[in-house]
Amino acid sequence: MNERIAIVGVGLIGGSFALALKAAGHAGEIVGVGRDAERMAEALELGVVDRVETDAVAGVAGCDVVLLAVPMGAMQAVLAAIAPGLGPRTVVTDAGSVKGSVVRDARAALGTLVRFVPGHPIAGTEHSGVGAAFAELYRGRRVILTPTDDTDTDAADLVTSLWEKTGARVERLGVDEHDELLAATSHLPHMLAFGLVDALARDGDAERVFRYAAGGFRDFTRIASSDPVMWRDICLSNRGALLSALRAYRDDLDALTAEVEEADADGLLQRFRRAKAARDRFCG
Amino acid sequence: MNERIAIVGVGLIGGSFALALKAAGHAGEIVGVGRDAERMAEALELGVVDRVETDAVAGVAGCDVVLLAVPMGAMQAVLAAIAPGLGPRTVVTDAGSVKGSVVRDARAALGTLVRFVPGHPIAGTEHSGVGAAFAELYRGRRVILTPTDDTDTDAADLVTSLWEKTGARVERLGVDEHDELLAATSHLPHMLAFGLVDALARDGDAERVFRYAAGGFRDFTRIASSDPVMWRDICLSNRGALLSALRAYRDDLDALTAEVEEADADGLLQRFRRAKAARDRFCG
Repeated sequence: MNERIAIVGVGLIGGSFALALKAAGHAGEIVGVGRDAERMAEALELGVVDRVETDAVAGVAGCDVVLLAVPMGAMQAVLAAIAPGLGPRTVVTDAGSVKGSVVRDARAALGTLVRFVPGHPIAGTEHSGVGAAFAELYRGRRVILTPTDDTDTDAADLVTSLWEKTGARVERLGVDEHDELLAATSHLPHMLAFGLVDALARDGDAERVFRYAAGGFRDFTRIASSDPVMWRDICLSNRGALLSALRAYRDDLDALTAEVEEADADGLLQRFRRAKAARDRFCG
Repeated sequence: MNERIAIVGVGLIGGSFALALKAAGHAGEIVGVGRDAERMAEALELGVVDRVETDAVAGVAGCDVVLLAVPMGAMQAVLAAIAPGLGPRTVVTDAGSVKGSVVRDARAALGTLVRFVPGHPIAGTEHSGVGAAFAELYRGRRVILTPTDDTDTDAADLVTSLWEKTGARVERLGVDEHDELLAATSHLPHMLAFGLVDALARDGDAERVFRYAAGGFRDFTRIASSDPVMWRDICLSNRGALLSALRAYRDDLDALTAEVEEADADGLLQRFRRAKAARDRFCG
């Protein structure tokens, strides 16, 4: 309970991690690290962290654990920036939505993965920034860790114990397994939603289209209001798995379209029944 | 306020229409019409209607207004069944999700559209049946009427005034205009959701896929739990408009997939920004 922890990127994700550890009685110092002095001052003022550093090397110096809670697009640069400040036993973990690209970046920046524990907390709110952070964000939510074959067992266990203190349910998956699973269940649905809203917005009378929007459509618009920069970075970081998911989905959509075109009543009914049965079975 | 009204199909939609009119002080008799004697008895017992008839001709005889609140797949047969019982001034309206096919069926069964007022209340719940009916279902919800060029003005005005008594906001659109609008904002999103859930359910480890389902995916599964028979009928009734919407969407999805494949960061960012801007502008 006495680890000194650096949190690089003190926003909703990093800030909530710090607050949850403090609420759980963590006694070690928690250092906030970020380039924006004003935002770091806010994190300190709010009592989210004990100390702040705007210099990456100074921030991680002497720390037992470093959590990278920065956007996917910043991971590579941040890993390179902290590398000179890490001690030989410092455990580095991250909170990025895609794991394969972070593992590649970590191997390049750190030279080894023995002290690197890739992680992905499946949690968030519609708000961002340290002001939105709260200690209960992770309670009951899943955190997926994807330790590599090279990762030390004790490093993975330490990161597991920290996440468990936040109230999260920690599970382990392979790196590729994680990225394929998230491509299917999160990244693809977001692509479909962004695509639909974008398509309808180009209608000659978009205002009318949205005005009449029925229930099914409103669910789509909500997830299409997510941060565009974050989603661009997720797309680029998880290109391979996302492409596979998009192509498989397109094949399914083509089959459904053919059934509509051919007025294939049985085919459509079977398709809808399969979907409803799966939904009721797994999400009931 | 003294019209005698027949409601053919006394489920959630028809039953709530009856209850709302009664709550608004409608004084004329409300007759429930349906072939299932047991369900009709339930509607009578619950006080949703004043009288029930299992014979279509007897049910609509002497009525000023007939509301068809049956599944899309039953419209053609029901129109043919009631036709012999209609008086020359009886106004017939419906509550189907697709308007072009009902107009065709009405023209064939009734020989004329002068007393036919196509309608579509955009309302519903996850429950169905007369036991789920309640007087407030339509309060503040949109009801779209699509009177044809042949429809009498007084017939359309009478149906408008009845829906307004339920608390609904009545608007008028052209028949094709309605079907294209609903294809884009309701039917297409449901197809995308059914398609996604069906595709993921075929995964070798579907249980795991659903277990890890993140926020974006849960919204999809909810709308994929809708009634398969109803959606098969909507697909078949609105084939033309739905096919156009599916094909336009596929073109968009292909463009997005190409951007992912080519790692086109700017293209993806612009696409996501357009979608978010439209969402925030129209649905904020």
